[in-house]
Amino acid sequence: MKIARFLWQGQPQWGVVDGDELRELPNGPFVDLRLGNALCKLSDAKLLAPIDPYGNKVPAMAANYGEKAGRDGPGIFMKQPGTVIGHGEAIVYPRSCTKVVHEAEVGIVIGKEARHVSVENALDYVLGYTCVNDVSATEMKTNDVGRGMSLRWKHFDTFCPIGPYVVTNLDGDNLGITCRVNGETVLEGSTRDMLWGMAEVVSWTSEVMTLYPGDIIPSGCPGVLPFEIGDIVEVEIEGVGTLSNPVVADS
Amino acid sequence: MKIARFLWQGQPQWGVVDGDELRELPNGPFVDLRLGNALCKLSDAKLLAPIDPYGNKVPAMAANYGEKAGRDGPGIFMKQPGTVIGHGEAIVYPRSCTKVVHEAEVGIVIGKEARHVSVENALDYVLGYTCVNDVSATEMKTNDVGRGMSLRWKHFDTFCPIGPYVVTNLDGDNLGITCRVNGETVLEGSTRDMLWGMAEVVSWTSEVMTLYPGDIIPSGCPGVLPFEIGDIVEVEIEGVGTLSNPVVADS
Repeated sequence: MKIARFLWQGQPQWGVVDGDELRELPNGPFVDLRLGNALCKLSDAKLLAPIDPYGNKVPAMAANYGEKAGRDGPGIFMKQPGTVIGHGEAIVYPRSCTKVVHEAEVGIVIGKEARHVSVENALDYVLGYTCVNDVSATEMKTNDVGRGMSLRWKHFDTFCPIGPYVVTNLDGDNLGITCRVNGETVLEGSTRDMLWGMAEVVSWTSEVMTLYPGDIIPSGCPGVLPFEIGDIVEVEIEGVGTLSNPVVADS
Repeated sequence: MKIARFLWQGQPQWGVVDGDELRELPNGPFVDLRLGNALCKLSDAKLLAPIDPYGNKVPAMAANYGEKAGRDGPGIFMKQPGTVIGHGEAIVYPRSCTKVVHEAEVGIVIGKEARHVSVENALDYVLGYTCVNDVSATEMKTNDVGRGMSLRWKHFDTFCPIGPYVVTNLDGDNLGITCRVNGETVLEGSTRDMLWGMAEVVSWTSEVMTLYPGDIIPSGCPGVLPFEIGDIVEVEIEGVGTLSNPVVADS
């Protein structure tokens, strides 16, 4: 099932993609997935990020590809609510930055309240998966006092495009990830290469913080590359779709 | 003026401490500070954290005391919404932690939307100051993959007591900070020793993310010490009041 959040009569609305139409989810996607009426053509809809960033949160995995090096689990940091934008919305290249990179990731969409859940049960708390671009200003990693404790470089407004859809019934541990800049493939990966799989990520995060329906966990990215003002950056997740965002200058 | 957020007829309500009473702020504290009727005795009120953590955000300074070491500014990280608790509420000592510390800090309460504001103008965007305890599980700093990017140790639920009041018309750069455990003073400091003052912190943060009325910026702590289950931890800020929280075991 392909779930979307979109503007309907001026308000955010949850629905399901049914052919070329969007059908209403009268109870939203977290109570049940009962279908209502068709509301509009998909092509006419203004899609929104599939999260209310002030009603939910985005705890992200800091490193979930590469080398484990004897560590206990992936790092966790928060994307601040102002980072969240939807499909088609502009990433603002901050005026204080000179190197900004994309991080193409699978977002785990939580479906049920989760606290201290075991790895064995963790996937029961997942509604589905979406595309995330964990945009980062790499050069700022080491400029701050307390730099081992600064995530400033991941907190700039618009630095977390999410969307366009949440798709259920996927094997999260076997999804292709493609990143394109201006139509050209710049990175290909797969969640098969994650150090910790989706169940482990959900369990690990739920040990730290209670997860609520609608929270989204970006699960880490297989590689990063810089982009520039004027580029169009796309994150495609196999079975989910393509999240596309133009890059514009700061005001 | 001493502003409080408290439960009134089952709903969060903003008011002002007037002697031993709480008077209503009909428009809240961010539009104007027009006073309404007295609602109840202060001693009868259940105080809440002076923030809705899902309507606002808590970007914290990672290091704002000690050595500048040639760096550009303090690190920034986010406290996740589930960390926020009010005066008197319990800090839960996580079952997976063996060393948890207090970090007594002054919280800067934003009064007006702020983006790209200069140091010169920054204090115009500050409503007042409050007490914050940026609780941290120190031993987890280095256990994670991507550990230079992991703030997991600051993200445990209940790890950000805030309150009891927001006080206006204070000189934020000259406030005493006292931390007590079980009534005994364990740490004394002053915001005079901050590496970057309140105006610089607000300007620096507003360069990264748009700040909205009600956002609270913990401005860094002058020192940390561990506490244990059963302790009562207090953060006193000169002119603001005392934030007191018991520490309980995880469930």
